[in-house]
Amino acid sequence: MIQRPRGTRDFGPAEMAKRRKVEQAMRDVCHRFGFGEVVTPTFEHSELFTLRSGQGIIDEMYVFKDKGDREMALRPEITASVIRFYVTDMSTSPKPLKLYYVGNCFRYENPQSGRYREFFQLGAELIGTKTPETDAEVIALAVNCIRDAGLENFVVRVGHIGILKSLVREQIKDEQTAAEVLRKIDKEDWDALGDMFDAKVLPRQLFDKITSIADIKGGVEELNNLEDSESTRHLKEIFEVLKLYGIDDAQVDLGIVRGLDYYSGMVFEIDAPRLGAEKQVLGGGSYTLSELFGGEPVFSTGFAIGIDRVVLASEAEREIQVEPPLDAYVIPAKDDMRKYAFGIVARLRSQGLNADVDLMRRTMSKNLKYASSVGARFAVIVGKDEMAKRSVTLRDMKTGKQELVLADEVGSAIAGSHG
Amino acid sequence: MIQRPRGTRDFGPAEMAKRRKVEQAMRDVCHRFGFGEVVTPTFEHSELFTLRSGQGIIDEMYVFKDKGDREMALRPEITASVIRFYVTDMSTSPKPLKLYYVGNCFRYENPQSGRYREFFQLGAELIGTKTPETDAEVIALAVNCIRDAGLENFVVRVGHIGILKSLVREQIKDEQTAAEVLRKIDKEDWDALGDMFDAKVLPRQLFDKITSIADIKGGVEELNNLEDSESTRHLKEIFEVLKLYGIDDAQVDLGIVRGLDYYSGMVFEIDAPRLGAEKQVLGGGSYTLSELFGGEPVFSTGFAIGIDRVVLASEAEREIQVEPPLDAYVIPAKDDMRKYAFGIVARLRSQGLNADVDLMRRTMSKNLKYASSVGARFAVIVGKDEMAKRSVTLRDMKTGKQELVLADEVGSAIAGSHG
Repeated sequence: MIQRPRGTRDFGPAEMAKRRKVEQAMRDVCHRFGFGEVVTPTFEHSELFTLRSGQGIIDEMYVFKDKGDREMALRPEITASVIRFYVTDMSTSPKPLKLYYVGNCFRYENPQSGRYREFFQLGAELIGTKTPETDAEVIALAVNCIRDAGLENFVVRVGHIGILKSLVREQIKDEQTAAEVLRKIDKEDWDALGDMFDAKVLPRQLFDKITSIADIKGGVEELNNLEDSESTRHLKEIFEVLKLYGIDDAQVDLGIVRGLDYYSGMVFEIDAPRLGAEKQVLGGGSYTLSELFGGEPVFSTGFAIGIDRVVLASEAEREIQVEPPLDAYVIPAKDDMRKYAFGIVARLRSQGLNADVDLMRRTMSKNLKYASSVGARFAVIVGKDEMAKRSVTLRDMKTGKQELVLADEVGSAIAGSHG
Repeated sequence: MIQRPRGTRDFGPAEMAKRRKVEQAMRDVCHRFGFGEVVTPTFEHSELFTLRSGQGIIDEMYVFKDKGDREMALRPEITASVIRFYVTDMSTSPKPLKLYYVGNCFRYENPQSGRYREFFQLGAELIGTKTPETDAEVIALAVNCIRDAGLENFVVRVGHIGILKSLVREQIKDEQTAAEVLRKIDKEDWDALGDMFDAKVLPRQLFDKITSIADIKGGVEELNNLEDSESTRHLKEIFEVLKLYGIDDAQVDLGIVRGLDYYSGMVFEIDAPRLGAEKQVLGGGSYTLSELFGGEPVFSTGFAIGIDRVVLASEAEREIQVEPPLDAYVIPAKDDMRKYAFGIVARLRSQGLNADVDLMRRTMSKNLKYASSVGARFAVIVGKDEMAKRSVTLRDMKTGKQELVLADEVGSAIAGSHG
């Protein structure tokens, strides 16, 4: 028997109904915030991703040569593609550009809970502006996406990479040492940073300051403990606008330091604590990337949501409710009523109802069992008497209640009754 | 500058709005017909596709080895994956199973008009039954998808592969010769078939009969010229049910002979003549496939629609109409009104409107120009006077008409006006 590839998944109709509901809720939020959808290719020249994330990412990607011997990679993320699209085709569009995407990404790693080799992301990029309200707008979009996806328990943490970055660059004049320190901060490798302090490369005062800043986590009042700087003022303004947007429970977290090379200012993450170790459902921040791809530098702020984890987290809180897939299942009692039944089902569908009909010429009891197993709200039974009266017997599959309804009225009878 | 890979595309917001509208219309039809969505992996063991389509397809696929040295392929089609999913996980589900999918497929060929290396398909598979009404149901689903996608000019052609197949198998007792003849019919290589007749392998009477059957194309009345057989009775019944489903313009075409190994009964195609040489937007038929993947044989009927071609064909008829992406663009006249403006935009969004706000602290005239360039229906202007009166100035971007509206009422004023 041929199996699906390791680390990938198949999704059946019941699961897809839930996933599409979550996805659609997030798409609706993107539209409400004025973001327009973009779609980019599933594979790109692998250079696109190594330029953004470094050569190390090669080992985590599905890489293949095309017949022209060009190295391609299945995309591990979509931000790089969106910015590449911006550079090649949209750089002269009116700014700001507000773009979002929904797509599959690929990562060659060992499958484990919440991590798959093919996974799904929804993300947004706001291109061409760098005001605090820009960052707040993107955070607000993210929070509204997560909220409208149905999640109740989540934590928004917002930091600013410029605070540690400018501190290190001011205090360490030797560029190589500064870069080395930043790399260790980026990896959150505090032990290695301590070694640098022990080896007297890093002054005690600076080491203490770095670790104390990275430790600042908590309510917005934590910002008052920071020295005044462009970065702290920027961060304070972000929290002010978030409040005007009705978001007053975002946390300060200056320990968010990943991607120092890449992110330039605000960084933020959203966690769903119920997911345990793999609790992060979203990561983002402000960055510049276009110049790496041969474009003019342009400020951008964006994020990516792990749709799989949002669905997992949402289901952990409560089952995602979806409509029954089928409003009506039409059953001809005998062969003579078959044609009449096809007319009925066609009419129900033309009225916008989700309707099905016996296609296997089965007995009444087998048909009723099938209607029940696929979750039809009603069985629409057509026998000899019903046909003679231009009627049907409408059976509520939940209560078992049956009534005779004129064929002309069965659609509105079903539409009017909400299961 | 890094380019997108050859033969692939980027889609911007204006194009995606149209594509999603077409896609959603077709999804709605699938749901009305009782089909549920499935999603399968983007790559599969390449064996899955060679088992269905033969080794020849290797050259047309993107193939790569994973780190366990297993040969994978980006899917060239999705039917094989759906049936593989059926075999591994759904074979005991109540029958019939009605499944549909929307996804990207990959084909390594020279890019040309309407053919891309990454392209998009919507398809359906009805698994577990083989009655004529099953085939009619699938054809009706296809026709309704194409119709609701917005296409007006299209031709539905329905044939039956069993007619030629059983004729050849009855008349030619030597199995190898029969297979050879069928292969030539499959390739529509009438010259080579003529050579077999010239070489006296194929009797004149049979040769004439094959070509005359393959030539049968036209209205449903063409079926009356056929000898009675199980296949012709089956085909007649399909057309009868189609009529009950309100589809009375489907054509008979016994020349549809591709995939003789694969299809077992009814075959059908839909063309959009406006597309010229690449006019086929849909192909399908009834088949058995599960036994190739290690499952029990099961009858299935399905089709795949080329979404790219449907969008092209639809646009060739008339521009696909979509809603303006933005209902309102909020502009603070001065810095003092900025916070007030954020409150306004947040409220408009919470009322379900698509709303945006100045994030670049621009002048009024630049903001109005931007609002116009992104196609906002209204500009919502907040100046000192407006703020004092808890109001805004609502400007219709089409007519230029302005009026003072209470902040509490601007949402309903915009919602009530349809651009």
